Amino acid sequence: MKDKRIGFVGLGRMGGNMARCLHGKGYNVAAVFDIDGKVATGLAAEIGATAYTKLADLTTNADIILTVVTNDEAMDAIFFGGDNLLTGAEGRLFINCATLTPSVHQKLDEAARKVGAQCLEACMASSIPQARNGELFLMIGGKEALFESTKPLLDDMSNALHYVGSAGKASQVKALVNMVMNCNTAALAEGLGIGDALGLDLGMLCKVFSQTGANSRVLETDSEDMIQRDHDCYFSAEHAAKDSGIALALAAAQGINAPLAQATFDQYTKLTSMGKGGLDKSGIAELTFQGRS
Amino acid sequence: MKDKRIGFVGLGRMGGNMARCLHGKGYNVAAVFDIDGKVATGLAAEIGATAYTKLADLTTNADIILTVVTNDEAMDAIFFGGDNLLTGAEGRLFINCATLTPSVHQKLDEAARKVGAQCLEACMASSIPQARNGELFLMIGGKEALFESTKPLLDDMSNALHYVGSAGKASQVKALVNMVMNCNTAALAEGLGIGDALGLDLGMLCKVFSQTGANSRVLETDSEDMIQRDHDCYFSAEHAAKDSGIALALAAAQGINAPLAQATFDQYTKLTSMGKGGLDKSGIAELTFQGRS
Repeated sequence: MKDKRIGFVGLGRMGGNMARCLHGKGYNVAAVFDIDGKVATGLAAEIGATAYTKLADLTTNADIILTVVTNDEAMDAIFFGGDNLLTGAEGRLFINCATLTPSVHQKLDEAARKVGAQCLEACMASSIPQARNGELFLMIGGKEALFESTKPLLDDMSNALHYVGSAGKASQVKALVNMVMNCNTAALAEGLGIGDALGLDLGMLCKVFSQTGANSRVLETDSEDMIQRDHDCYFSAEHAAKDSGIALALAAAQGINAPLAQATFDQYTKLTSMGKGGLDKSGIAELTFQGRS
Repeated sequence: MKDKRIGFVGLGRMGGNMARCLHGKGYNVAAVFDIDGKVATGLAAEIGATAYTKLADLTTNADIILTVVTNDEAMDAIFFGGDNLLTGAEGRLFINCATLTPSVHQKLDEAARKVGAQCLEACMASSIPQARNGELFLMIGGKEALFESTKPLLDDMSNALHYVGSAGKASQVKALVNMVMNCNTAALAEGLGIGDALGLDLGMLCKVFSQTGANSRVLETDSEDMIQRDHDCYFSAEHAAKDSGIALALAAAQGINAPLAQATFDQYTKLTSMGKGGLDKSGIAELTFQGRS
């Protein structure tokens, strides 16, 4: 698919590095857009693309368009705003990588079909280095045949590609992944915060956690950062609140009570309301260690 | 230490199998007691021990006494009740394996010292097969010199021995281990329950969890049981409620807000109040899957 013109919309920590990755692998990353024009011109200069200030112009000048925006509202704006990506989009393929409310993907899928375009959801469960190195964990939703025909490109972005079902299903899986991850993170922050207050050796405590039923991926990735207060952002507290909120809405729609997800959402929302939403998700430890907040 | 007479008080799933294990390794497991006399005579017959119906008699006939009882109340009863283990306990070593409120260990430590006996806490973070096979994860609290001199015996019960500090410290660590484990379990039950309601393939969902930030030890040990409703008890919901409650009390004493631990405690307490406290901790999924409760 290296003969296709690739477009990127949303050039933040993830999108920008995915564009760099595909460029480095010989793809024709031709067109870029970001709500911050300077970010777009900077990346365009770096990888030899053209930065557009109108979304419709980007659509004109790209065959496959990856969108990597922040949330439902941003997604709505780029596809349904006055200037939007669906204008003149016949024949285009959109690969949408943001974690969204699943129904947004379903709505978009229909709108794209009406103008002769196609969509895939490509939900990511990875972070910046994986974006840069083409090692994303990707969950794909949409038509299976379209997934198959797009596989060469997706494979170049990913080292773990999962087709999970029709449009919206990948977002559902992604929301549940992040919901469980966020709960485990919030629980770990409580365990370490209490241990710290009791005067326990936190290195010993982490070692014991790692060898017992308390072990988890977030213990590996976040415990040291919680202890050191190193909250440089890989996955922000604000995003954690958003994704837990999406999962809670899915639960509510099914009549399921999810008190752990709720407590986690409340903690991340609290952190965000304290102006600390830009901290990494490990920043939740700021709420559970004595004397930190 | 195979010349010493070993006593066991509390012959449930854990204690009974620890007694079998030491007997199998050539220790002189001479004296056993259980609140259910039949359990005691049954095990005594199996391993050639004597079953006592009075705790003071057990103390008379053992040098090292392992206690593996259920909770603070049971611990109080065997050490401070009318008939108790401290009667004539001079020179005895008590190794206390129950997960208790840490202050109970401190109180016991002093009481034992007054009658010329010694105590170690040996908190376990393992389950029945590990008890049977001498592969317990053990966290030891008490005097370090006493730990060192008791090591040969402890090593025969354990494949992961951690000395964590003075009396009460092991219980603190244990409570935090179980608190975090219980939170992760409750969060997993929500993720799987919501996924099930959404019609997702739960095998796929577990695979995705395992490869992402949602991975955890309890995903390995409990997800299949949650899906299959196989709640045969290894670690009961009732115990989960108890241990989360101990951790919550530690947090409260330090002025730390622990909403995840609280939500988990509430879920396990709810399950227990529904008469399902005897289910394994995976039974918490009965609260989060549609149509189960």
